[in-house]
Amino acid sequence: MVHNENCIFCKIIAGEIPSAKVYENEHVLAFLDISQVTEGHTLVIPKNHEENVYELSEESAKHVFQAVPKIANAIKEKFNPIGMNLLQNNGEAAGQTVFHYHVHLLPRYGKDDGFGLVWKTHHDEYTPEKLQEMAEKIASGIE
Amino acid sequence: MVHNENCIFCKIIAGEIPSAKVYENEHVLAFLDISQVTEGHTLVIPKNHEENVYELSEESAKHVFQAVPKIANAIKEKFNPIGMNLLQNNGEAAGQTVFHYHVHLLPRYGKDDGFGLVWKTHHDEYTPEKLQEMAEKIASGIE
Repeated sequence: MVHNENCIFCKIIAGEIPSAKVYENEHVLAFLDISQVTEGHTLVIPKNHEENVYELSEESAKHVFQAVPKIANAIKEKFNPIGMNLLQNNGEAAGQTVFHYHVHLLPRYGKDDGFGLVWKTHHDEYTPEKLQEMAEKIASGIE
Repeated sequence: MVHNENCIFCKIIAGEIPSAKVYENEHVLAFLDISQVTEGHTLVIPKNHEENVYELSEESAKHVFQAVPKIANAIKEKFNPIGMNLLQNNGEAAGQTVFHYHVHLLPRYGKDDGFGLVWKTHHDEYTPEKLQEMAEKIASGIE
């Protein structure tokens, strides 16, 4: 298990910094975000220090996301949100501020609850042929 | 494998509707979102029809997210984004429009690239004691 001594989430995992724990197993920790965006805002992280989705091992991905549905269901049962967003940011440009992979579970309560999306689609710029070409380009990069 | 004949993503999986496929295995399909928010915007879905994170089986969660890092790396390699957001919406109130579980991979190119977050924190409303109480409430709902 990689522990990065400069990482605040590694310190939380090690118990050097307190947290409000929601769930824990051998591979995964879930705790409330100290900066609650919406009530019940929870973070799920691998115990192994991996910076982002590019570094995330398939093993860690499996462990983190196997834990997510039961945590999401418990939040739903206890806080009764009307929706839930899962968000995971990679890189400063995408809003990542702690460089230890973490998934935000954001229960939703209405339009002005603290969280929202800017979502502008670009239908006109992408023909089916263009999309096919792009898909093949990405596919060629997957082993 | 559950196939819902009224579901557009189940039709894509069955090949009844064309798509620009990025990756496929026994359990998972990845294809370009026809409504590209940012260039390379990809969806990853389980082949089994499950509506949202509450319904998602641990098996499907494992299969979907084991595929995500390699797809994210291929998008990074081929489109050279400066960041990437992973987003998964549950319920209309959270922006879900197709009711078959799907993860958005959104490569980022800058502030006005089509995607963004509304993110308002509520530090003052949550003392450590309040957070602890909320965490215990959620934990009590996890088997």
